[in-house]
Amino acid sequence: MSRSLSPEQAQHIEDLYGPLTQSLRRLIDVTIRSEADDIEVAQAHRLIEQAADLLSSRLDPGPFGVRTTTDGGMLPWGNVAIGMRNAIAPPLNVIRDDSGRATVDLVLEAPYEGPAGHVHGGVCALLLDHVLGATAHRPGKPAFTGTLTLRYVAPTRLGKLRVEAWIDSETESKTIAAGHIKDADGVVTVQAEGIFIRPKAKP
Amino acid sequence: MSRSLSPEQAQHIEDLYGPLTQSLRRLIDVTIRSEADDIEVAQAHRLIEQAADLLSSRLDPGPFGVRTTTDGGMLPWGNVAIGMRNAIAPPLNVIRDDSGRATVDLVLEAPYEGPAGHVHGGVCALLLDHVLGATAHRPGKPAFTGTLTLRYVAPTRLGKLRVEAWIDSETESKTIAAGHIKDADGVVTVQAEGIFIRPKAKP
Repeated sequence: MSRSLSPEQAQHIEDLYGPLTQSLRRLIDVTIRSEADDIEVAQAHRLIEQAADLLSSRLDPGPFGVRTTTDGGMLPWGNVAIGMRNAIAPPLNVIRDDSGRATVDLVLEAPYEGPAGHVHGGVCALLLDHVLGATAHRPGKPAFTGTLTLRYVAPTRLGKLRVEAWIDSETESKTIAAGHIKDADGVVTVQAEGIFIRPKAKP
Repeated sequence: MSRSLSPEQAQHIEDLYGPLTQSLRRLIDVTIRSEADDIEVAQAHRLIEQAADLLSSRLDPGPFGVRTTTDGGMLPWGNVAIGMRNAIAPPLNVIRDDSGRATVDLVLEAPYEGPAGHVHGGVCALLLDHVLGATAHRPGKPAFTGTLTLRYVAPTRLGKLRVEAWIDSETESKTIAAGHIKDADGVVTVQAEGIFIRPKAKP
């Protein structure tokens, strides 16, 4: 696949892989919760192998990387947090306002469990890293995590969550951001602060 | 499913779901990297739906939670970091020695990507949260993350990684742990420190 797609090509691939990846998210979930008969499980296993074989008929050898559209759009389809083609990604739909504030509403169920009935502390860290980092991205200048500090102030139950992040202070090369996760009752469960670095553009 | 299984039942379910979940991890990967024809992708989508329907013929309504074997074993099969039935989990195979040191060797490829060719910073945080936390678990006394501080000192390339964690100091109710991620060349890419809390057993 060429690294740069026309907007029409990109839309076509989204129409094809968006629903497939959504089905795959459901399959990940029911694989954890299934109590089906052995025969049904064995049959499901064969179907999964067949699906993987079909998709492997032609494969990009490397990871997805960064691809773009010819009109300058970014295609983060492989990204583990936001990727349209990555079934591990919830995926996060990050909404940013003019002040640089970033907000994500999401629902996490069985596939993101750590302690019984609760979101894994490491998944909370992943959410906060991504959403705090989103306040620091600039067009053509992605930001990389420098440091991240997390305080787990209450257990994060599986279910509806909101992740919010904002810019605390900023220079040309770095953003200091803060944020938190709130549960369905609006209770803050994890607080975070981080420094995000924008590498200098290569001359 | 009963919350407590005989060791034989547990082994039977592992034999059934272990290979299925491994196939599902492959399916997640090739969904990101596929360049198959539209017809093959559509066919793969139908097979994924059929597999999910089969596994949904009988479903546990809740997340997996904590289940045990009748001889006192733990079954963290749904866990997002280590779960045998959770295709999001790499899964981590945590090796602990007598000093409480915890080590994981793993390979992360396309499904864990953030910046092009690199592990997502949030995935690094998930790995370190889990492995530092593993130094603090005691039989029947899981530990919960209190605070976690991460310093990203070098980019973490996709590929072979080692995560190591050790106990810095400890009281009855909490463990202060430290650790890092090393890449295939043995270079430390992310350093971490954390406080992990063991809640008092209920009387």
